[in-house]
Amino acid sequence: MLLLIPGPVMTRPEVRAAAGQDFAPWDRDFAPILEDVLGRLLRLAGGSAPDHVTLPVQGCGHFAIEAAIRTFLPPGGKILIPAVGQYAERMTRLAVEAGRVVVPLAVPQVERVGADPVGAALAADPAISHVGIVYSETGTGIIHDAAAIGAVARAAGRRVIVDAISAFGALAFDIGAQPEVDAVVLTANKCLEGLPGIAFAVCRADRLEASVGQAGSWSLDLADIHRAARASGAGYARFTPPAQIIVALRKALDLLDAEGGPPARLARYTANMRTLVDGVTALGLALYLRPEMQGPIVVNFAAPADKQWDLQHFVDRLKARGVLISNFYNTERPSFRVGCIGAVTPADMRFATAAIGGALGDLGIRPKRAAA
Amino acid sequence: MLLLIPGPVMTRPEVRAAAGQDFAPWDRDFAPILEDVLGRLLRLAGGSAPDHVTLPVQGCGHFAIEAAIRTFLPPGGKILIPAVGQYAERMTRLAVEAGRVVVPLAVPQVERVGADPVGAALAADPAISHVGIVYSETGTGIIHDAAAIGAVARAAGRRVIVDAISAFGALAFDIGAQPEVDAVVLTANKCLEGLPGIAFAVCRADRLEASVGQAGSWSLDLADIHRAARASGAGYARFTPPAQIIVALRKALDLLDAEGGPPARLARYTANMRTLVDGVTALGLALYLRPEMQGPIVVNFAAPADKQWDLQHFVDRLKARGVLISNFYNTERPSFRVGCIGAVTPADMRFATAAIGGALGDLGIRPKRAAA
Repeated sequence: MLLLIPGPVMTRPEVRAAAGQDFAPWDRDFAPILEDVLGRLLRLAGGSAPDHVTLPVQGCGHFAIEAAIRTFLPPGGKILIPAVGQYAERMTRLAVEAGRVVVPLAVPQVERVGADPVGAALAADPAISHVGIVYSETGTGIIHDAAAIGAVARAAGRRVIVDAISAFGALAFDIGAQPEVDAVVLTANKCLEGLPGIAFAVCRADRLEASVGQAGSWSLDLADIHRAARASGAGYARFTPPAQIIVALRKALDLLDAEGGPPARLARYTANMRTLVDGVTALGLALYLRPEMQGPIVVNFAAPADKQWDLQHFVDRLKARGVLISNFYNTERPSFRVGCIGAVTPADMRFATAAIGGALGDLGIRPKRAAA
Repeated sequence: MLLLIPGPVMTRPEVRAAAGQDFAPWDRDFAPILEDVLGRLLRLAGGSAPDHVTLPVQGCGHFAIEAAIRTFLPPGGKILIPAVGQYAERMTRLAVEAGRVVVPLAVPQVERVGADPVGAALAADPAISHVGIVYSETGTGIIHDAAAIGAVARAAGRRVIVDAISAFGALAFDIGAQPEVDAVVLTANKCLEGLPGIAFAVCRADRLEASVGQAGSWSLDLADIHRAARASGAGYARFTPPAQIIVALRKALDLLDAEGGPPARLARYTANMRTLVDGVTALGLALYLRPEMQGPIVVNFAAPADKQWDLQHFVDRLKARGVLISNFYNTERPSFRVGCIGAVTPADMRFATAAIGGALGDLGIRPKRAAA
């Protein structure tokens, strides 16, 4: 079965095999593994010790987003979040329920968010301390310009939290060049192609030290995770970590290196996306976005304007043909989405395109251009 | 390598192999797996639908403890926590940092906590709404009488949160017979012998519905996890779940059934503990606890009163002999601890006993009784 969802992604058998061993997380043999993983993630993020540090937060990416917001904003602190889609909404809810104040910035979800409206919103409210940016908005498939938005925040003397969950490992990020960034959040799964179960925040050490005591949650306090790691030495995990998931991630990082690092991975994902888009538009379906907005992580196709269209039925027929996609959509108008990330190649995308054509036929849908 | 730590425990190869597959968590093939796991955990906890519900909280057990405290106590709410050891201290810190008020109850850590002091503390402060109980205190190895403490709380009209993390799957628990319990918290690892990476809370549905909106954390809100599961149908996980860990847990539950359920598992762990205690005390070392306080999960031995004793050195020598134990202790006086849980048997404990004797010899330590 070919999994084409924007996470959890397909992983390689070597990665899953690496998880097939038990570990004592406090053992001297395990600490170097965790330390190695943390160091490699730091370098991938453009960070360097001791100015920056990678902190593990087990669970899904949302947990690490909440942890970053709690740690760097005090209760009642104000964060501007451009409402670019489903994952911006989730960041908003995580912040609001944690007792932080969100200033939403309404933007068209089918466009890349501009630096100007962000700058204007910051100028209008000096009490806003942070901007929350979703780098790759999985809901729409648009890659936002985290560096440009960051520069606006920096110019306005504000701090930034970046949700890079579905971007990290493929799309470039350089925390060393973005001193306004308090935390960039990533996960072991998605573009790193590890197993799901742990997330990470790459942070500035000075900001962690300045943010002690305001998280209001011991579990989700990055400053305390940092304190514990510093007190206990390299490779220390505060609570029982998912050791198997960490060892699998190390193997996944080996495979990322072998592939040629993030630029090579981005090239493969981009080729996946192009192959899929070319194939499926040739079937007569339309991209949800204008083509120049389409990112390489996930593609939304507009649902066919056909009374035979039923998303779950389509997903079931596609699955019968060996391709599994999400049975929901996160766009404002109906769509279906296909992930382009994970251990998949353009050949898989050609297979998927044929399966999509077949599944449409199963539903009795003949898109216009296909009939031409 | 024989892992004898009280978690993460050794798992069986079948369990780890079950994790070796990718899943789409929203797929119709995955939902029944999660639903099956949740239902089996519910029955193991003595719960029954629709009165009780099992809720997943990914990450370690601490996350689910914090979630239970946040969900069932309002900000500023008061919880009495008998200070029975390291894990009671952790529950205390989780509650305090979440803005709840902890009334600590000082008790001797080497004894089982009595019902009378709990009853007296509750009588003295009517503002205490909850009691937090650690069922198996991993720090000391004592099994506390969660049912008796619960009965005292019930008689006083208070609610209870049970940390059963290192007990569940071996020691009996019956939430159906303990209506005062809001949540019993467990993990996939420990006595269930799954992989670490997800925890669960078995809760009363009516109490979840009465507790909407007070968690102050979207990530750790059991009431919202419950709402989402009810709204979306069986087997729904709110955020991307660690699918591999869940599938591995299903296999681990199959193996628990095949073994004869919690009573058979408790019998094996008890035999592990007895074999270890008999063997190591025959070497001349002393139990940390009075024998009648010793539980079957983890054994602390008093550190030998010998100037040659060095815990890390001992752990290293033991590891060279194929046995890995914790390189720290959580007791008030120095000790070393050996876990009796996981995929290990009395034969493994005999092997460990011989290795402990050998490692003591490596350090030049000849305990008195061994010399007799």
